[in-house]
Amino acid sequence: MSDLQFRGYAINDTAKWTEFEVRDFEPMGERDDTIDIEIKYCGICSSDVHTITGGWGDINTPLVSGHEVGGIVRKVGKGVKGFKVGDRAVVGAQIDSCGKCRQCGDNQENYCPKQVDTYNAEAWDGKITQGGYSTAIRAPERFVFHIPDSLPLEDAAPMACGGLTVFSPMYRFGVKKGMKVGIAGLGGLGHFAVQFAAAMGAEVVVFTHQQDKVEDAKKMGASDVVLTTDKDWNQKYSFALDYLLVTIDVSKALPLTDLTSMLYVNGVCHLCCMPDDPIEAFQTQSLAANGASISVNHVGNKIEAEEMFRLAADKNVRAWKEMIPMSQVGKGVQGVKNNEVRYRYVLKQDLA
Amino acid sequence: MSDLQFRGYAINDTAKWTEFEVRDFEPMGERDDTIDIEIKYCGICSSDVHTITGGWGDINTPLVSGHEVGGIVRKVGKGVKGFKVGDRAVVGAQIDSCGKCRQCGDNQENYCPKQVDTYNAEAWDGKITQGGYSTAIRAPERFVFHIPDSLPLEDAAPMACGGLTVFSPMYRFGVKKGMKVGIAGLGGLGHFAVQFAAAMGAEVVVFTHQQDKVEDAKKMGASDVVLTTDKDWNQKYSFALDYLLVTIDVSKALPLTDLTSMLYVNGVCHLCCMPDDPIEAFQTQSLAANGASISVNHVGNKIEAEEMFRLAADKNVRAWKEMIPMSQVGKGVQGVKNNEVRYRYVLKQDLA
Repeated sequence: MSDLQFRGYAINDTAKWTEFEVRDFEPMGERDDTIDIEIKYCGICSSDVHTITGGWGDINTPLVSGHEVGGIVRKVGKGVKGFKVGDRAVVGAQIDSCGKCRQCGDNQENYCPKQVDTYNAEAWDGKITQGGYSTAIRAPERFVFHIPDSLPLEDAAPMACGGLTVFSPMYRFGVKKGMKVGIAGLGGLGHFAVQFAAAMGAEVVVFTHQQDKVEDAKKMGASDVVLTTDKDWNQKYSFALDYLLVTIDVSKALPLTDLTSMLYVNGVCHLCCMPDDPIEAFQTQSLAANGASISVNHVGNKIEAEEMFRLAADKNVRAWKEMIPMSQVGKGVQGVKNNEVRYRYVLKQDLA
Repeated sequence: MSDLQFRGYAINDTAKWTEFEVRDFEPMGERDDTIDIEIKYCGICSSDVHTITGGWGDINTPLVSGHEVGGIVRKVGKGVKGFKVGDRAVVGAQIDSCGKCRQCGDNQENYCPKQVDTYNAEAWDGKITQGGYSTAIRAPERFVFHIPDSLPLEDAAPMACGGLTVFSPMYRFGVKKGMKVGIAGLGGLGHFAVQFAAAMGAEVVVFTHQQDKVEDAKKMGASDVVLTTDKDWNQKYSFALDYLLVTIDVSKALPLTDLTSMLYVNGVCHLCCMPDDPIEAFQTQSLAANGASISVNHVGNKIEAEEMFRLAADKNVRAWKEMIPMSQVGKGVQGVKNNEVRYRYVLKQDLA
């Protein structure tokens, strides 16, 4: 038995989404495949902000959010094969799936119709899942990731959602040397996307409305940066990109047809974002000029997560982060909402 | 010199789009690569109706529409290598491209930014292109297709747009045996799509709101037909399709999220339609459950066109058509608008 306490920073009301209070909670029930992890770090993802502000709908309160969790294994179920007590481990935005459907059998567990979110979802035993702004998390082995020894835990944690969400679609598309890849939006997801696309060998062009991020983008690996506040900003790369990953998380700031106009024939505009409001209505005519596609993903699978961590270790991909004590999570979520963060807040444990 | 007269059935006003009158017109100027074709047949495509009704915007009048043209070569420019006088030949929705850009060099001439539509577009010499409801057409060799001897000209003509528009995206996706392909909408495009998907070896499921088309769909090669008027019609194939080709040409009849819900992980919903109005606004969340894509195309290239005709000849794909005299084109466009056609009107020459 581990003596982990499950205790976290919870909000009670979406109208008061910066007001957190410490509460004990019950994790999902133990199974043969569950692992208990003592949390050291947790990234703040914009999903957390969408959720706690009610932007994605009603939530269960009190709620502990956070799904970019890094920690140390303290207990393993008797069926766990890949982890032992003392291992470093990371958990992302998904905590469970049915394990029986076609998707689960195909290593597409992130598309299981019964997938369980890391927080604000119903676990296998009916409990509401609670996230990583907390002392500890219990997760089935399939949703716990190994990281290479050389990758710092505080960098790996925010990659578990923010990194994987951009890595998985680029990995599936087959981003590689010789391709020209655009990254639109340079926030938490975008800053990982630039680094991973460059690590995969692509020529990377960043599209941002923020002049003060231009130098950062280049340091992250961009070969060019286009300011979307410039007139006709989408002309320079007209018909030029093989792939464009969009991390702009506000519908009205997402100029879909301008973005897709930069794709070469049959290029893909991948929307790595879930704005509160619908994407602008579009006409198929606007995509027909280049036969473009629009695609979407939901995080990634375990194989991709561990590939990502290996690539990060090999190519020195890191979270550009501001570390703050977990007790200052209210300030953190406010900073994400206000787009003040450069580029990810990582909460450091101060409860345990 | 051929003694072809260029004369066609033209409309003068989008408000009077069923009123055609016979007019002489000037084709694009001759070049070394142009071919003059005496027209025998021309299909009526729904694009023609979108255009002449003004649904896609203002047009040049008088206008001869029609871009599913089948005929006999009567003259070839001195640079023409693949055709000789007397050959059968087919022309589709595109009549020219710049020939110099990256797309043209990549056999992606259908995505050339300077592509020229077969009618209502400005040709290389400034003339407005006129379509196939007429006695003759002049086209550069790149936009004139060969057909196998065993394929009737009156079947090949409507395939030049209605067939190619559905063939090209399925060919690029790689539809093949072992795949489950949905076809939504069983009109002019859909009826070709069912036949080609089956000819490529896929298991084909048709989605239609018309009970009276069920038996036809099966004869065309569908293994199952789902009536979209049934309650929960999209449940049976939830997460089941690899590819879904949508030929529903009216935005409000196009239930995008119901359609995409039927795709397996990373499946593609291909919109082979250009409704007058925008597609419904969508949330990325609705595509995230299966990581689906939405794609669009603009007809196909010459290589694909000639592949399509070979497959049609080999696998006995035919236009299910109603032949009408070209002089009855007004009745034809009305029948397309009212969705009365089963499944393609083909105009038979009566002017020459």
